[in-house]
Amino acid sequence: MATIKTLDDLFLDTLKDIYFAEKQILKALPKMARAAQSEEGKAGFLQHRDETQGQIERLEQVFEIIGKSARGKTCEAIQGIISEGEEIMEEFKGSPALDAGLISSAQAVEHYEIARYGTLIAWADQLGHTDAVALLQANLEEEEATDQKLTQLAKAQANAKGKIKAV
Amino acid sequence: MATIKTLDDLFLDTLKDIYFAEKQILKALPKMARAAQSEEGKAGFLQHRDETQGQIERLEQVFEIIGKSARGKTCEAIQGIISEGEEIMEEFKGSPALDAGLISSAQAVEHYEIARYGTLIAWADQLGHTDAVALLQANLEEEEATDQKLTQLAKAQANAKGKIKAV
Repeated sequence: MATIKTLDDLFLDTLKDIYFAEKQILKALPKMARAAQSEEGKAGFLQHRDETQGQIERLEQVFEIIGKSARGKTCEAIQGIISEGEEIMEEFKGSPALDAGLISSAQAVEHYEIARYGTLIAWADQLGHTDAVALLQANLEEEEATDQKLTQLAKAQANAKGKIKAV
Repeated sequence: MATIKTLDDLFLDTLKDIYFAEKQILKALPKMARAAQSEEGKAGFLQHRDETQGQIERLEQVFEIIGKSARGKTCEAIQGIISEGEEIMEEFKGSPALDAGLISSAQAVEHYEIARYGTLIAWADQLGHTDAVALLQANLEEEEATDQKLTQLAKAQANAKGKIKAV
């Protein structure tokens, strides 16, 4: 007999989704760092790679808190976002617009994570997993800070190319 | 001979990407409205469907401004996000957690759009397409407002179920 699924199931499913996503991102970031033309871009992607490693460890602690083994579940959303980023890397190779495209892809990744962590935090709170809230909140804050850094990087590079006035 | 791709090409590619995405969202929203258990959820998804129609028309104006015909380009990211939402609709059918899952999927969609519009606005500005900036900004503001409404809806439903304290 099928059991009725609850918010606990939804929380676990979504935790597995973001765990899979973070692991895909961990693999994608060094490729983006190699592709980036600017030193700031390269450094930024590598720094976020290290942060992502820490985020994966926090997610493993959340799995522990809810008494489940850490396991990912294929996340088609992140696969699609990363695949669009790879397309840009290929199509804009050697183009002065390559880094703008890479930053844009990275921001789509960040926003996916921001949406998922926002949801997971609300559900962890409803389910009374207070320690999980703190861990997920730490990940969310890093993703939001990364998104802001990417916006600054995009502006700095555009300014350097003299295409917009200094802000 | 291959021509070097510029920021204009990147802008056009990303405009086609979000145009395709908005059209997919337009088709997905009535399905989400039908699936939603609460009246507020149904009404919210249908209202956003109407907004999405207006956003598609603004994007068509942006195509006009840059002198290109409005055409979408397959956006694997939105396909992945929508497909995850459909999976939730199926797996959580009849579950008290269904609406929470639908709202979460809708927020992942909103965040994808927020990322893309943020990027397109910055590029339209750099490229001097001032009229396009205003149109894209109008879409961005609607997506941000929708994301906030979805957060409120999620909280209201959780409160109604008595699972968290009133906020």
